[in-house]
Amino acid sequence: MKMEVISLKKPNIVILGAGYGGMITASRLTKQLGHNEASITLVNKHDYHYQTTWLHEPAAGTLSPERTRMPINSVLDLNKIKFVKDIVVEIKRDEKKVVLENGELEYDYLVVGLGAEAETFGVPGVFEHAFSKWTVNGAREVKEHIEYMFAKYNNTPEKKDELLTFIVAGAGFTGIEFIGELSHRLPELCARYDVPREKVKMYVIEAAPTALPGFDPELVEYAMNLLESRGVEFKINCPIKEVTESGVLLASGDEIKAETIVWATGVRGSSIIEKSGFEAMRGRIKVDPDLRAPGHEDIFIIGDCALLINEEINRPYPPTAQIAMQMAEVCANNVKALIKNESLKTFKPDIKGTVASLGGKEAIGVVGARKLFGSSANFMKKMIDNRYLFLLGGPGLVLKRGKNPL
Amino acid sequence: MKMEVISLKKPNIVILGAGYGGMITASRLTKQLGHNEASITLVNKHDYHYQTTWLHEPAAGTLSPERTRMPINSVLDLNKIKFVKDIVVEIKRDEKKVVLENGELEYDYLVVGLGAEAETFGVPGVFEHAFSKWTVNGAREVKEHIEYMFAKYNNTPEKKDELLTFIVAGAGFTGIEFIGELSHRLPELCARYDVPREKVKMYVIEAAPTALPGFDPELVEYAMNLLESRGVEFKINCPIKEVTESGVLLASGDEIKAETIVWATGVRGSSIIEKSGFEAMRGRIKVDPDLRAPGHEDIFIIGDCALLINEEINRPYPPTAQIAMQMAEVCANNVKALIKNESLKTFKPDIKGTVASLGGKEAIGVVGARKLFGSSANFMKKMIDNRYLFLLGGPGLVLKRGKNPL
Repeated sequence: MKMEVISLKKPNIVILGAGYGGMITASRLTKQLGHNEASITLVNKHDYHYQTTWLHEPAAGTLSPERTRMPINSVLDLNKIKFVKDIVVEIKRDEKKVVLENGELEYDYLVVGLGAEAETFGVPGVFEHAFSKWTVNGAREVKEHIEYMFAKYNNTPEKKDELLTFIVAGAGFTGIEFIGELSHRLPELCARYDVPREKVKMYVIEAAPTALPGFDPELVEYAMNLLESRGVEFKINCPIKEVTESGVLLASGDEIKAETIVWATGVRGSSIIEKSGFEAMRGRIKVDPDLRAPGHEDIFIIGDCALLINEEINRPYPPTAQIAMQMAEVCANNVKALIKNESLKTFKPDIKGTVASLGGKEAIGVVGARKLFGSSANFMKKMIDNRYLFLLGGPGLVLKRGKNPL
Repeated sequence: MKMEVISLKKPNIVILGAGYGGMITASRLTKQLGHNEASITLVNKHDYHYQTTWLHEPAAGTLSPERTRMPINSVLDLNKIKFVKDIVVEIKRDEKKVVLENGELEYDYLVVGLGAEAETFGVPGVFEHAFSKWTVNGAREVKEHIEYMFAKYNNTPEKKDELLTFIVAGAGFTGIEFIGELSHRLPELCARYDVPREKVKMYVIEAAPTALPGFDPELVEYAMNLLESRGVEFKINCPIKEVTESGVLLASGDEIKAETIVWATGVRGSSIIEKSGFEAMRGRIKVDPDLRAPGHEDIFIIGDCALLINEEINRPYPPTAQIAMQMAEVCANNVKALIKNESLKTFKPDIKGTVASLGGKEAIGVVGARKLFGSSANFMKKMIDNRYLFLLGGPGLVLKRGKNPL
């Protein structure tokens, strides 16, 4: 009698976050588990999913923000998965439930794909005076702020230089891709607002001794030369001490005045991780090989909240969409395996390549052992963007939302 | 011998300002005077002319600002008229010359069409905290500011209401036409930035006892009802005491917090008029019947700097594009008449009608003795806009830059 009751109760799978990891996990689980095998719930702050790796484009105004997001119900079959639009407050591990702003959810299996937050490295003033949100809302704000500064310039009698000074903090992937878009768009912005090109200043400020650390030096040089030819000034090896209302203070003591500071020095995992009492480093949990949180049989951590060491170089893998999606495939399989009493898979990332767009038809990248420059790298970048759409929603989604690589 | 020298010297005609008055004067003079009869110079701050009466549209973001301006050399034949891009500093009447920021110009005949400036009626804080420039630069700034406020809203944790509060000071023509466009555009703005419609507040604040003073009460009621149905709140009979960084202080002692305050309480003439020692009321010179400044045989004043009394009601005619253009026709004729020793014409305005657009297909107006509402008023408004282009540049300009009235 007791056995029957247990078998009648479908396990509750709760997925937190509809980013790359959460969406692919949700999509795979709805296919791998029948309606009577489990009840699956996806929780997300918005009713849309967005592609974080595309956001440098709407932030610079070179792509409509609508192109970077899609309604969750346009991709997932809501007959097979329950969607809850709410904000996660805390995971109560002992009680096996998730506290939301407007309710609670009980889980048997939990998938945490809560994504990343800006890392300030303790620099004061970032949240107050810089744009640090790589979200749809954040990208729209940066774009509209930039255009407002251009529009404002000709209306200030003293024509303040800081209105046309744009600082990107961080020469990593995001910072470089953003300044690539902005510098590419600059001639159009200058023409549209009657602003002389030479009045605009663009800085990329990086504390590390190189731009794009970890990237092939030849590619880094290509990228920097290209961006410099568009007027970008690099300040490498140049830590920022403080962000103020009027600009940035450098460790050297110098100040650069600017009304627009875009923060892109890297990310940390979600603060919900620490708030929920997990052992973590900067919001990232060092996961077991099967992607579960150590000591938790029922909790999987994927994406930017999962810390995974690349043993070849004894350093963590970077938090990328590519790895989040690969984790999601293994995570979905392992959740299914637990429910069906199968054996769990071990996660092993398979880095196919990395491409950074530089605006227009320009990009740099590594695919396999090959270095790519210019239009061939740009082609790869668009193929990567399309491949993601394919993995998420099949050929239909590529046709509907994909990028023309030519 | 002496006679010959005088006849060899072509008179210098200098036109200040490329607004409605200056452009039509320039266009007419190049047709009425041959190359050897006079040398004509037009001075303007920008190398483009813009249609002030259209600016509420780009300011609200319902029309590209490019549609409201045109390069001066695309309308005037620069083989027949010299164009100087510069800013007028002062008119030195005794020396018959005009001081520019970057030079000086001597004139034999001067046409002053320097246009209007915002009238604050002594309310403090307008220039510091409100948008008061009805220019291409000013309209772009308002538009980008509004969009920035929408984009910012979802990124502020406390979701500040003042980001979505829009105050228009003044329920005259400009204020009503602007809020008409903005309220019409609101659903699109809310959708684009994921902002709930009910969070947006729009106020029109007017010190006078009615909106659109001087307009037919039935039409005023139609306009107010329509705008109220779109969420606009009118505060009539409600003087503003001060504009502050955080909003407006009313004479009643109340405060309305808002990040966007658009100032449209009316205009005064150019401050160059007073600076140059003309006798004037708020930058407007009460002109002689032939449009010359009293006591000056060689200076014509047209457009917003000219004050003309409507004897029927013993009040000044309002500063409108319609009157500026009619003045320009008479002015051009009279300048030619002075040069050719003909008799001068007297200016008599012929008010054909007035139409105020209310956004979308809505408008109100009076044409002759007929009141117009809705789409028929909207049709008239577009015909008026097109008629101006016809007067300025013939059918070609209407085809190229005109508005589809249907």
